[in-house]
Amino acid sequence: MPNVPCFGANAIGLPPLIKLLFMSVIVVGTMAFDAIETPFGKSDKIIGGSATYVAYAASHFIQPVQQVSIVGYDFPNEEINALKALGVEVEGVEIVPDKKSFFWSGKYHLDMNTRDTLVTDLNVLADFKPVVPESYQGAEFLMLGNLVPAIQKSVINQLKHRPKLIVLDTMNFWIESALDDLKEVLQLVDVLLVNDGEARELTGEYSIVRAAKKILAMGPKYLIIKKGEHGALLFHANSVFFAPALPLEDVFDPTGAGDSFAGGFIGHLARTKDISFENMKTAIIVGSVMASFCVEKFGTQRLKEITREDIDARLDAFVQLVNFDIALV
Amino acid sequence: MPNVPCFGANAIGLPPLIKLLFMSVIVVGTMAFDAIETPFGKSDKIIGGSATYVAYAASHFIQPVQQVSIVGYDFPNEEINALKALGVEVEGVEIVPDKKSFFWSGKYHLDMNTRDTLVTDLNVLADFKPVVPESYQGAEFLMLGNLVPAIQKSVINQLKHRPKLIVLDTMNFWIESALDDLKEVLQLVDVLLVNDGEARELTGEYSIVRAAKKILAMGPKYLIIKKGEHGALLFHANSVFFAPALPLEDVFDPTGAGDSFAGGFIGHLARTKDISFENMKTAIIVGSVMASFCVEKFGTQRLKEITREDIDARLDAFVQLVNFDIALV
Repeated sequence: MPNVPCFGANAIGLPPLIKLLFMSVIVVGTMAFDAIETPFGKSDKIIGGSATYVAYAASHFIQPVQQVSIVGYDFPNEEINALKALGVEVEGVEIVPDKKSFFWSGKYHLDMNTRDTLVTDLNVLADFKPVVPESYQGAEFLMLGNLVPAIQKSVINQLKHRPKLIVLDTMNFWIESALDDLKEVLQLVDVLLVNDGEARELTGEYSIVRAAKKILAMGPKYLIIKKGEHGALLFHANSVFFAPALPLEDVFDPTGAGDSFAGGFIGHLARTKDISFENMKTAIIVGSVMASFCVEKFGTQRLKEITREDIDARLDAFVQLVNFDIALV
Repeated sequence: MPNVPCFGANAIGLPPLIKLLFMSVIVVGTMAFDAIETPFGKSDKIIGGSATYVAYAASHFIQPVQQVSIVGYDFPNEEINALKALGVEVEGVEIVPDKKSFFWSGKYHLDMNTRDTLVTDLNVLADFKPVVPESYQGAEFLMLGNLVPAIQKSVINQLKHRPKLIVLDTMNFWIESALDDLKEVLQLVDVLLVNDGEARELTGEYSIVRAAKKILAMGPKYLIIKKGEHGALLFHANSVFFAPALPLEDVFDPTGAGDSFAGGFIGHLARTKDISFENMKTAIIVGSVMASFCVEKFGTQRLKEITREDIDARLDAFVQLVNFDIALV
């Protein structure tokens, strides 16, 4: 599919029934500012936030992406317009006129797998009570970025038509501070996205395989365990699939890699309208490809500049990386 | 190929020219005793050593395996006979009548990726000057287990006919204490096997991709970087291939996993008589399968009891783990 801007069904005023054909994706998460230090450099205050990365990654595959987020008066109009030009709808993005946008600052260690948080200014995020606009109703895919579990649940409850697929991201902070709420929302979703440390913390199991079994018993039918530079595992019933991360010469800035992965994953599923286990394997490869672009430059820069040809070339590299002649075994 | 004992060309007294058809593998390394503690248990003094693990893994695929090692008076005859019954030749195993075998004892941490050495008794290993028996001349494959680099070189120099493929294993101790000798022997081998930490230490590059480029410039045409539970990478010229480790519910004892990997790798190559990059990919999958068995019980126990059917079933599981429909991308 060529990566041409498309404003989705909404832009041309179609009724909701017709809109269903477009397989829209609702993305809930933060749109924010980040300031990042890595061993290779230091960024100014740049655009970040989970929903921003998901939208930039997913919009290469599907339009419309229907954003639900909150920003302050300081969030640049040009950024909103850049997203709109890629087929991202922003009716669900609340703009608070008298507060600042969420701000996070962090510093990565030499291994690029661990980081220290330097600053967390919640600002508008402290008041975030997402409201799903009427025009988003009927979306077939829902991506719930890492947020308070009760808020994630409130979004699901606002949808009149249950999406075909609900994907949820979370983090250790909620496992530690809101476990009961998290367990409740886990019963409502189809796919959980966590990293290996979070899977261990959520279950008390060191073995990833044992942890996966326990999580699949908590509600989600599919579980993706992200292992950063060591790839990602997809678990479903008794099946497991593994996709490596592309070995890169340099990882410049890991911020947003997980969200770019999520955006590629749900973008591919929505584009192909196929939520089978087989197609989820491919979606994980697409997610890994988007993450591999994300880390090549600061912030969302690389996700903005890549073309469909860049993506295809990297998908090819991925296939080469893992493909072997089964007949030879 | 059924896993039936086969005593190789030597057992039936064939001349060297005919023996070449059998694609024998020379394995140089330790045969020793280990005592192992893991979070799950503690072993008695059990059979270990790099050459032992390589031989048990490789003999599932190829006979004869021609062992070059050194043991003391205490090394059990039954163990030698068990190896012989699997088609392992032991003419190159020196038995020192008045000294004990090499002994290593270690304790694994909870993550099973790191360990403390508790005891290292070199015993016979201090005098190890391997002599390649005349009957081994003409072998097409040479596996040099982790040893003093100068000793590894002396084995290569003893061979009248350069093997089709020389694989070398080493470790951080030699990178730190015998770098010049190591660099010399690297120029004589085809494949280097190291782990990610050793690749970084050998090159001073944190990025695995940059480290691989530097190592390929040191001599080996192929480089395998083992990442334990995170799989293994194969580098050759500008190509790279990745194979994951099989996600296991429990890792009982990681001792010998790297040597079992090496044994499966070289065993598959020798069996198929094909040292192309394509076939090396398959050999890495076979190596990962043998490592996945090794860690399921203490010592060499699991490698001894598995059948060809067990190996085939696990190869299938491996294919399922990484296989996706390329056409869907």
